[in-house]
Amino acid sequence: MAKAAKQRVSSPAKGTQGVALDGTVAPAKHPAGMRHWVWDEVEREIINPLLERQLVVGQDVMLARLLLRKGCVVPMHSHMNEQLSMIFSGALKFWIDGKELVVRGGEVLTIPPNMPHKAEALEDTTGIDVFHPPRADWINKTDSYLRK
Amino acid sequence: MAKAAKQRVSSPAKGTQGVALDGTVAPAKHPAGMRHWVWDEVEREIINPLLERQLVVGQDVMLARLLLRKGCVVPMHSHMNEQLSMIFSGALKFWIDGKELVVRGGEVLTIPPNMPHKAEALEDTTGIDVFHPPRADWINKTDSYLRK
Repeated sequence: MAKAAKQRVSSPAKGTQGVALDGTVAPAKHPAGMRHWVWDEVEREIINPLLERQLVVGQDVMLARLLLRKGCVVPMHSHMNEQLSMIFSGALKFWIDGKELVVRGGEVLTIPPNMPHKAEALEDTTGIDVFHPPRADWINKTDSYLRK
Repeated sequence: MAKAAKQRVSSPAKGTQGVALDGTVAPAKHPAGMRHWVWDEVEREIINPLLERQLVVGQDVMLARLLLRKGCVVPMHSHMNEQLSMIFSGALKFWIDGKELVVRGGEVLTIPPNMPHKAEALEDTTGIDVFHPPRADWINKTDSYLRK
């Protein structure tokens, strides 16, 4: 098994303590062939009482289908992985790049590598996060910053 | 402007002539900051009478929201870009890796780089294709293999 992802405290951003996550990128590429996935047959992981997650892992890209129940908070953090957050329903408030913004159903937020961000579900929210490269800490279940 | 994508004929795969596309990867990374996108405000491109497309372009990942009307055929082709095809509604038949398979709403097909594939919409179909790196030929509108 991969060792647990380490966490270190980065410089505070706009008065909010940010956590730069280590261990989010696997040392070697995840080799992948062609594969047909059915979301309803993909393991549904209960990360915390307000957060459920399913993963589809490709070679250099990963999809995470998420259900964030109202009040779910993803604490301020950053990672090497580029992130594209596609929201299908609900509303997710982000604190990012010195701004506060709400991403709703039918919208996308593109987050460059290493940009600290925090999020809170203002309503029950569904969506898919796309990561490049795949989030090794999510695959290895070493994402302790979410499991509180 | 980027020069038009060249096309060359690759080795026939299982009796089906495949087209390996050139010009699908930009020579330099597309730099991108944080950006909030609203799908309904993103340009909707009519590629051919049966195919509509919108693009959200990040740094190393691109999303293409697609509407393929029943009967839309994407001819056999391959590209350097990894592709993840997420289907939301409808049914898309693929010819890939020597197999025929139908991807329906709630399903995903992960296609490794350089794997030839053909697709046909068996019904009006909506979904999102994820590409890494972004498809330069789609951004530059040099994707003549689709514009017929």
